[in-house]
Order: sequence, then C-alpha cells, then structure tokens
Amino acid sequence: HSTQESESDLTTTLLKLCADRSFIAPGEVHTRALRHGNSCSYGPLGKDLKKNILDQWWNSITRSKAQVFGIDTLQHVPNDAGSLKLVDTSAFGQIINNKDLTKSQVVDRLQQLLHHSSSVRTNLLQGALEQCLPSLELVKRKLPFGLAETGVCHQLLDQNKAAIGCSSERTEASLVWFCSPRTASQWLDHWTRQRLKWWRKFALSPSDFSSSDVVEAELQGGASRGVQVTYRFPWGSEPLETLWNLGESELLKTHGNARAKLQCKDGRKLVVPHVVAVNGNMDRGVLAYLFNSLQLEKKGSGKQRIHQRKVLKLHPTLAPVKVALDMGKGATMELRQVCEGLLTEFLEADISVWPGYLEPQTLDQLHTKYDEMGVLFTVMISENTLENGLLLVRNRDSTIRETMHISEVKTYLQKYINAAENI
Amino acid sequence: HSTQESESDLTTTLLKLCADRSFIAPGEVHTRALRHGNSCSYGPLGKDLKKNILDQWWNSITRSKAQVFGIDTLQHVPNDAGSLKLVDTSAFGQIINNKDLTKSQVVDRLQQLLHHSSSVRTNLLQGALEQCLPSLELVKRKLPFGLAETGVCHQLLDQNKAAIGCSSERTEASLVWFCSPRTASQWLDHWTRQRLKWWRKFALSPSDFSSSDVVEAELQGGASRGVQVTYRFPWGSEPLETLWNLGESELLKTHGNARAKLQCKDGRKLVVPHVVAVNGNMDRGVLAYLFNSLQLEKKGSGKQRIHQRKVLKLHPTLAPVKVALDMGKGATMELRQVCEGLLTEFLEADISVWPGYLEPQTLDQLHTKYDEMGVLFTVMISENTLENGLLLVRNRDSTIRETMHISEVKTYLQKYINAAENI
Repeated sequence: HSTQESESDLTTTLLKLCADRSFIAPGEVHTRALRHGNSCSYGPLGKDLKKNILDQWWNSITRSKAQVFGIDTLQHVPNDAGSLKLVDTSAFGQIINNKDLTKSQVVDRLQQLLHHSSSVRTNLLQGALEQCLPSLELVKRKLPFGLAETGVCHQLLDQNKAAIGCSSERTEASLVWFCSPRTASQWLDHWTRQRLKWWRKFALSPSDFSSSDVVEAELQGGASRGVQVTYRFPWGSEPLETLWNLGESELLKTHGNARAKLQCKDGRKLVVPHVVAVNGNMDRGVLAYLFNSLQLEKKGSGKQRIHQRKVLKLHPTLAPVKVALDMGKGATMELRQVCEGLLTEFLEADISVWPGYLEPQTLDQLHTKYDEMGVLFTVMISENTLENGLLLVRNRDSTIRETMHISEVKTYLQKYINAAENI
Repeated sequence: HSTQESESDLTTTLLKLCADRSFIAPGEVHTRALRHGNSCSYGPLGKDLKKNILDQWWNSITRSKAQVFGIDTLQHVPNDAGSLKLVDTSAFGQIINNKDLTKSQVVDRLQQLLHHSSSVRTNLLQGALEQCLPSLELVKRKLPFGLAETGVCHQLLDQNKAAIGCSSERTEASLVWFCSPRTASQWLDHWTRQRLKWWRKFALSPSDFSSSDVVEAELQGGASRGVQVTYRFPWGSEPLETLWNLGESELLKTHGNARAKLQCKDGRKLVVPHVVAVNGNMDRGVLAYLFNSLQLEKKGSGKQRIHQRKVLKLHPTLAPVKVALDMGKGATMELRQVCEGLLTEFLEADISVWPGYLEPQTLDQLHTKYDEMGVLFTVMISENTLENGLLLVRNRDSTIRETMHISEVKTYLQKYINAAENI
C-alpha cells in the first residue's frame, strides 16, 4: 500500500466506500456488523462478491475429492438446551397478559412454550455429524469422506458490547471430514495447506493471509489440535477459517454412543471415524478480500491538491462486475441499441455486466466510480463503433485503454478471466 | 404415467425413494416437512438438486434484464411486531427462575427482553422494499428495475396441525420489480409468462404446471391483483410461485410515507414506483420436480412377479448427478486408476460425477439404484478399456448402451447437457 494513512482512516475509508458503492446497505448497523465479521444486508455489489467467494469455496471443496458430498440442513433444531430459541410472540403475549394466572402458572406455561420452541443452529458441525450415519451407507462405510455445507448460523451478541438478548447472524462454510484415526492428523495438515492456498489464490497481498496453531488453552469442542487461517486487518489478525481435529467424541455423542452403528473399514480393522472440522466465516472473508484489494493511489502532483484514486483491485474471479458498458453523453438511439446488444451477449455468456450507458456522467466520474466498484473493464462505445466496429476497452489495473473490434470483446474478456482463475 | 397406483401410493413411493436415495435425511420429520412444502435436511442428492433449481432460477431472473440486481438481506430484523422472535434462553431462564421477583416484575422484564430480541423474517419482500432507496441512486431513478434474493424465511406452523409455538423454515426466491404505475399490470403479465415458461422448461410433463389468477378474497398485502403458478401434486394443486401487483402502498409504508424520496422519472412525470412482487417456494419446487420426473415402469412380463422400475427422469440441467463411473467387480488397480483419472476430468469440467467404482455391486443393482437417483449416464469401464480405450455409456432415459472412446466421453456429455438446456 502506497499510503501513509493511519489504520483507523483506512478502515473508515473502506467501510464508507462499501456503503457508497452498494456493497452493503447504508446505515451504521450494517457497517458495524460487517466490521465485526457478521452478516449485514448486502447491496448488489456485495451480494455478487459474497456469492463469488462462496461459489469458489464450494468448488474448491467439493471438486477436490470424489468423496465430498454437499448437504443442506435445517436452521431450526430440536435442541432443548439451545442458547437462542424461536418464540411465538403471540402465544407468549397470551401467557404474560393473562391476568388470571398466578406467577407460578405463568412460569410453568412459559417453560412449556419454550420447550416446544425450536432452537436455531449456531454452527454447521452438528448437522453434518447427524448426517454422518445415512452418508455411511452412501460410501459403503469406506473412509475418508466429507460433508460440505454453507449457510446462515445464529449467535448471541457478546453481552459486553450489546444489549442483553441481541443476536447476530453469519454465513459459514463447513467441511466435516470423516477419516480413520490413523490419518486424522495428516488430514488436518492437508486441509490446512489446501485452505491457506485457497485464500491466498485470490489475494492481492497473499502474505496478509497466514495460518497458525491454536494454543492449547483455546481448543474447543474436545479438539486435540486446532489451526486457524487468519487475515491481518488494520486493527489486528482475525480468524477466517478454523480447522479442528475433533477425534471421535462429538460424533459418538451425537449418535448416543452407538459405536457399532458408526463403524467403518480401515484396512482390516473396524473403527469409529475421527472428525476433522473445517469452518469458515464467509462474511469476514468478504471483508478480508475488500481490505486486501483496496489500493489508494495519489493522483495529481506538485502543490496541487492531491486527490486519492481508490481502486478495489479484486481478483478477476471475485470481482462482482466484470465489465461496464458506456457510450458517453448525448448518444443516439442507434448507439444505445449497440450497447444493449453487447449487454445481452455478455449476460448470455455469464459475464456480469454493468449497464453504465444508462448513467449520464462524465468519463472521469465514471472511471472513479468503476474503480471503487472494482469493475474489471470499461467498454466505451462511440460513433466510431457504428462506422468501423471499433471500441475502447479500459483495464482497471493498468488503466490502459485498448482499441478492439466489437466482435472480439467477449472472447477477450473470457480469456482474461479464465487465465486469472487458472494461475 | 404408466401406472395404476393410487395417489397416496405414489406419494409414499416418492417420499421413500427420496429418503433411500439420499435426497433427504431419513426420518418422519424430514419427510413430513418436504411433503408440506417446507425445508427439510437435504442429503447430497437433494442438496444438488435444490442448488441446481436455485441456480437456474437466479440466472433466469438476473440475466433476463440488465436492471435486475441481487441483494442479500438479514434474517434477523428489528421488528417489534414480528410473529417469531429469537430469545436468549439464558436471560429468559434468569428472569423466570428468580424467586425474588413478583409476577408483575417477571412480566415487565420478560417484555423488556422480548423488546430487545430480533424478529426473524417471514418473507423476502420487506428486505427488498428497504433496499429500494439506495438502489434508486444506483439506477439514477430510472424505472423499471428489480431486486432479487433467495434465502431462508421462517414461519410459525399452523396451530391446527402442530403444537403451539412450533416453527418451520422455507427457502424462498424473490424478485421485487419496481416500475411505473402505468406499466405495472403489463409487467405482472410479463413476469407471469416468464415464470410459467421457466417452470415448464425443466418439466417432463409441462402441463402439470399452470398459472391462474388469485381470487379477490385471497389477495394479500394490499395487492390489486395476484397470479399463482401451481403444480398438480397427487393430492391437489399447490402454489409454487406467486406474483402480486402491490401498487405503491407497501413501499410507502416501509419508508414512512416519504413520497419525495421515492420519486422516479416516468417520461416527464415524477412517480412513486409501483411494486410487482414475485415469490417462489423453492422447497415445494424441489418436490414438484421430483414428482414430475418420477416414472414407474413395469419390468418383467407374463405371470412372473412384476417388478417396478423407478426412474427419476429429472431434466439434464437439474439432475444432481450427471454421470456415474463404474468398473464392475474384481477390477484391477490399473482399472481403478483409469476411473480416477476420468473422475478428475469430469470434476474439472464441472460435470457432477458419482464415484460408483467404489461400490461392489452387480450391474443390475447399480442400474436400479442410479435410475432412482436420476443419474443421467452410467459409464462402464472394463478390461477392454485398457486395451482399446473403449467403454460403455448407458443413457438413463433410453436405457441404450453405446460404445464410445474414452477421449470422447466428456465432450459427448457436455454437448448432451448443453443441448437439453438450450431447447
């Protein structure tokens, strides 16, 4: 980063840009949620960025091995001891507003109501542990295999930071890997390497992503070992993805210690699978890639007032908008039709395109805006295009404008994006 | 359908098949949830089927027009009047178990706790109405434009059918279309045609999907008109997707009647956008396509005991597994390596593949199983393949086996799937 800005300025700049450029919904509540690694309401740009990250996560996990299966479990779980429960407010109101009930009757009925209410899941691990049993049939009790899921989980907010009872949500991505006890430790290493490599693949500064062992005092859920993939945010490092070697205890607990039902072949021996759990916070992942891709560049020189050029140099695969189509001010109906034709061509080729030609702005305003949106290419169509089919294609990262024939643009963009993905 | 089975038998057969073949998790609770159009825990096959349906829905909506933007809003909403609230059970317990509190103190504190607790969303409409305002800037106040979202919504279960306080969840898909008052009615017709065409595109019996107007008495949310796309299940028709012409009232209500803030250009006039809301229940959509694709065929003839061949003739685009790889019993290590190589090739080409070679079963057992899974093609590798590169490819729908060279299989499958998608 070529800037001298302080850490908090950088954070302010990025979060403001996110709200201004439709990555997240405006308002303090959304900015704060994203800043703390929780879900916020995402606007069009943020939605597509998050979708691209989740799609890449999914592909990297489910296509890496034949024995990884996707599942989709419920958010409502029949867990009597859950920390958050979904309560029917009208039934609740009828009980507490009933003047004829004594205190102990009110308490009894409320406890009944709570007992019938579903808990909401706080992680994706439990759902996968439950689906282990039917999946064993699927894989003919051969280890290893994995169950993958992405979805929303619910948490109580830390009571020191918020009013009592406040909750938050988070999009998590989970791989639960069932393997033989002999190999669990090697698998933890394997997935750690795979995950760190994945996060770095899409990074502008890969060294901001790193992995480290969790110290013994912080091991959770009976884990014998834990590793975190962390990102160095301006305010310090925070975990993006955590990997635990959980042994067999959680799986046994989930299935009432029915050891025989869980047994799998490991060579000639029968074993209860050991569990390696990989769990990512994908909202914090979105924030990490936003920070990682933000470049602040000085514009203008000498004693002129210095403007900052803000560019989100998001990886071509992750960039929510690959190309914006423009035609400058006062264009004719004919030009507009050319734009619409090209737009349809891009949409059909699954290239996400921004209908910039609908916006009457100067070229400079457009480039500033598109750089902040992380738009990979800007295509400028002009009267020229009508005459000879030529148009200008501007590259976000090099800022270089190239002349290209309209019939070549789609293939050029596809090749550029594919090349970046396969490096 | 070539069967004489009664309606309830057909339902039983399908739901059993879903549990047996890993579409849904085993257990009455999941079968019942799916049967009633709610989310259940999906196993690997169901997860991929649902994902394919959702992906197709998303593409058909967001790529149909340049002015459709995706959003991703929160499940927790600060709505004091919500019917379901997320309650912190430990704070709740501390209040009702406090012996020192009088009844009115308990009631006061519980009301406070409930007041601080978030509601959960029951639909996707509200989130889109809230994001209308920032989106107006994005589109320079030009109509029409749309906001699309898919995600989980939460409902109270009907108290006649369940214990008080029980809740369910559902994956919904929503397009909220903002347009000029003049054109709202035409847009409703446009989206109705588009949606019906979409549902029928993937159907084996398209006539089971139809659309009809909602009668006036059942119009919801201040709608002036409503249309339903329904599916004819064995027990009767149920709505898959509903389209409402909501006028301006819901949008105005969401933004505190701030008419000036919402105004958009409609030719020379300034207007508050009218809202056409399209909302689909994608869990019921999964069920509809499962029923629609199930074919029961008699096997064997004469006085022999008649076996039923059950085939899920899911559309090639929706089928969760496109190809299964097999090599028969007692195969050599060399053959297994060929299988693994081909599997990797398929995975890299984004063709979902089933590692059937891991399962030591007879050919007949495999075909029965794969037909019930809706597997499009079965590729059989044999000693022959090692000698001359030839293998057998069986088509689910025709049951015909073709000999093909190993180098051609991938391209053949890709062409087949693409052709089916583009009909």
